[in-house]
Amino acid sequence: MRGAKPLPLIIGRKPLLEALDQGTAVEKIFLLRTATGDEINKIKKIARERNIPISQVPVEKLNSFTKAQHQGVVAWTGLINYIDLQTAITYVVDEGQVPLFVLLDGVTDVRNVGAIARSALCCGAQGLILPTSQSASLTEEAIKTSAGALHKIMLCRIPSVPQAVDILRLNGIQVLGTQMKGSIPIYETDLSIPSCIVMGAEDTGISKDVIKRADHLVRIPMAASFDSLNVSVATGMILYEALRQRIMATK
Amino acid sequence: MRGAKPLPLIIGRKPLLEALDQGTAVEKIFLLRTATGDEINKIKKIARERNIPISQVPVEKLNSFTKAQHQGVVAWTGLINYIDLQTAITYVVDEGQVPLFVLLDGVTDVRNVGAIARSALCCGAQGLILPTSQSASLTEEAIKTSAGALHKIMLCRIPSVPQAVDILRLNGIQVLGTQMKGSIPIYETDLSIPSCIVMGAEDTGISKDVIKRADHLVRIPMAASFDSLNVSVATGMILYEALRQRIMATK
Repeated sequence: MRGAKPLPLIIGRKPLLEALDQGTAVEKIFLLRTATGDEINKIKKIARERNIPISQVPVEKLNSFTKAQHQGVVAWTGLINYIDLQTAITYVVDEGQVPLFVLLDGVTDVRNVGAIARSALCCGAQGLILPTSQSASLTEEAIKTSAGALHKIMLCRIPSVPQAVDILRLNGIQVLGTQMKGSIPIYETDLSIPSCIVMGAEDTGISKDVIKRADHLVRIPMAASFDSLNVSVATGMILYEALRQRIMATK
Repeated sequence: MRGAKPLPLIIGRKPLLEALDQGTAVEKIFLLRTATGDEINKIKKIARERNIPISQVPVEKLNSFTKAQHQGVVAWTGLINYIDLQTAITYVVDEGQVPLFVLLDGVTDVRNVGAIARSALCCGAQGLILPTSQSASLTEEAIKTSAGALHKIMLCRIPSVPQAVDILRLNGIQVLGTQMKGSIPIYETDLSIPSCIVMGAEDTGISKDVIKRADHLVRIPMAASFDSLNVSVATGMILYEALRQRIMATK
């Protein structure tokens, strides 16, 4: 939690099912590893449908959250309401906008996620896509770093990166994997068409799944052999290039 | 110091004068408010010549640095060697390069300074200009955030922003003040000619001196009314645009 205020907890099986029933935003669910039963199965099913991350943990972990009777179930309520990726794409298209999304493939530092949300909003991107398996918990710190942008952009949580890539491509959105050694410089990539930019972690880059499935692998041009941009700065440069091209296309 | 390791200290009048004599990099000098004498005058004179910031402080501040006899003088040795702005410009021109500088006018967060140094190096800028009066101390944290870029780019410390602007313009380098409401979008600004980009603090922007003296006031285009970019991201976007134009100009 990096010193951020702990999120309000939902404790126990029935309280969590009720909260899910009422549509409460849930950031993450912690289940006792050995927990079983109808209610647990129901919780797992809903979590899968809504792409809520589940962590199966030992009892000590649950006890560290609360001294109350937790029945093997503790959840963090979220500060963010997520939206289904297909719903988000349909919304953008229905609004007559040209889709521009950013998929974070291993970017977990909340300060980077916050700064990327700001740039995305400023440059006209409609949504950020965060994989359930690896995404940073969007705590108050992330929201603060985003200057509120995380509340103003569509956030899509998806179970896996390959699944997101498939949904994007099925909707006619080109998927652009960003790599230091990508074959096309971004200023030679047509970003005025429906696009999703995939950004990887600073150290490991984008995942093999993206390298295999992306429509193009693109790069930011570099003047020096020192090619080490901060990931939120790199994302900002590509989003700026997209906006520049989209402005030019309407002139 | 934000938790960074304290820099090695130079304690006492003679040791500091000797260190300055030997060309030791000095980050900052602390003088007792009431200190006087030939040696103090000599220290002040050298500091002025080399643009080393002096802080005049009460005795308690000096005592907090060291229990040794400090004679009213404590200095932090630097991790960085600064270079005179005119020398830096002359060097760039002699090398046959087109000058591209970044002047930080109120950007003090070390993480931002570090990220900006990385972008500057990646995009072919030759130097960062930091005003003595307001610059962040370039601690180990700043160098770490810069991924070493602060050791690979020319760093120029100048007493005041107006003086830097005057030196730049006298050398035929256009000075571009960046503002949310700048009149020219950066993609319509010619960045392929000798240029210095001035970035202000996120909250207050560039100073009045820059607004008055800049050749042009430029802006980053925005798609949304939400116009709140992180300063290191904004700097990265402009540096990218400069590199793009310079690549295009050679094609």
